[in-house]
Order: sequence, then C-alpha cells, then structure tokens
Amino acid sequence: MAPDFVLSLSEGPGMSADTPDPPFLAVIFTSKHSGQDVEEYGRVADRMIELAAQQDGYLGIESARSENGPGITVSYWRDEECINAWYRNAEHRDARRRGREKWYEHFHLRVAQVHRTYSSQPRVEET
Amino acid sequence: MAPDFVLSLSEGPGMSADTPDPPFLAVIFTSKHSGQDVEEYGRVADRMIELAAQQDGYLGIESARSENGPGITVSYWRDEECINAWYRNAEHRDARRRGREKWYEHFHLRVAQVHRTYSSQPRVEET
Repeated sequence: MAPDFVLSLSEGPGMSADTPDPPFLAVIFTSKHSGQDVEEYGRVADRMIELAAQQDGYLGIESARSENGPGITVSYWRDEECINAWYRNAEHRDARRRGREKWYEHFHLRVAQVHRTYSSQPRVEET
Repeated sequence: MAPDFVLSLSEGPGMSADTPDPPFLAVIFTSKHSGQDVEEYGRVADRMIELAAQQDGYLGIESARSENGPGITVSYWRDEECINAWYRNAEHRDARRRGREKWYEHFHLRVAQVHRTYSSQPRVEET
C-alpha cells in the first residue's frame, strides 16, 4: 500500500536545514490536504516558506508536501518567543485561516525542543 | 522553483499520528536520496515503518518521501529508552547502514521533546 502523490518541494533559501547545536525548537506541522484549490495553496505555501525565513530566530525549514495528500513541514526556531511572533504575523495568520477553512482535511501541529542531533556530514551544502 | 517529485507515502497502521498529550519524544529524520536503488529503498522504508510500529513505546509515524529527492519521516515515542531500543534493533541497524552507504546523499536526525500540540480535530480517523 504505497500510493504515489506528486510532491512539490520548495528549494528556496529557506530549505537549508543546517541548524546550530541544540537546544533549539522545532515546529512539526503535518497535514492532509483537502485536494481543493491546489494551485493557490502551493503559491501560499511557497510564500510562507519565504516569509518564515525572514523572521527573527528562524533557523531553517524542511518541507515535503503533496498536491492531494499528506504533507510535512518542520521549521526550526531559536526560542518560543520567535515562534509566537511568527504565529502573530498577519500574512501567516491569514494563510492559516485559509488552510483551516479550505486546504486542510486535518492537521497536527507539534512544538518540540530539539536536544540531540546527528548528521551524515558536518555541513550540508544547499545550492 | 517548485520541482515536482513522486512522493510515495505508506499508509499502513503506522501512519496514525494520533499521539497522546505531551510530553513525548519526536525523532525527525530528513534526508536527501542519492537516487540509487530506489525500489529496494522503498521496500525497506516501508518495512521500517511497519517494524517501528511494533516497538515498545511507539506512538506514531508520519512519512513523506520522494523517489529521487528529499524525504521527511517523523516518529513519535514515549521516552528515550524506547528510541534507543529501536535504534539497537538489528534489522533497523542494517537498514541504516545501507542508507548511509547507498541510499542517502545526506541526512539529518533530530531528537526532540514535544511539549505543545494542536490539532484541527480532537481525533483523526485514519482508514
């Protein structure tokens, strides 16, 4: 049972996941898309990745999402205050409202403190 | 810049992300595939999701992966001891060794304690 979805993954500057030594915070957002309004959703999701990268305390983002299925976005932050500020951002609030109303069949948001990391190499070159 | 990848997402029993109230732990595994040996990789990745779900302290898993690009798998666990036991599992060790040697161009592993959760609905019905 491994259905295939089309995954659209943004690879802007925000896709670097070269986070510092822990501790830092991770916001794990997982969602199942409704399948509605896919093009506009993709546009807004790309914009949110771009906008997140401009926020104070932003440390990186990793995102895999499907046009009509599950998606996972993990963003990394210095502290809770940075996350709260990002969630107060007006454009982000508006995107979340549209997500709740239209784009997501359901979603989970989990905030976690990263205390241990391991990488296959000390530094990932993102191009 | 939003390249499309084929996302293969397993939807076995392990895909439920109906985690309990925090605190619990999250293992965030993000990877970039080498593009080598894709079929065998998919088979082993499906098996690891199945096997993880049988471990003590397993709370759920969410996974989005591409055949030739980035992938994110987040697994949820009761405590560190459960994670350590899962990483000592012989079949899992062997899969990780093959991943390092062949399947992954690079990867990050981050272990985090979830302290706050929010869902769009109290309980997700997975079918």
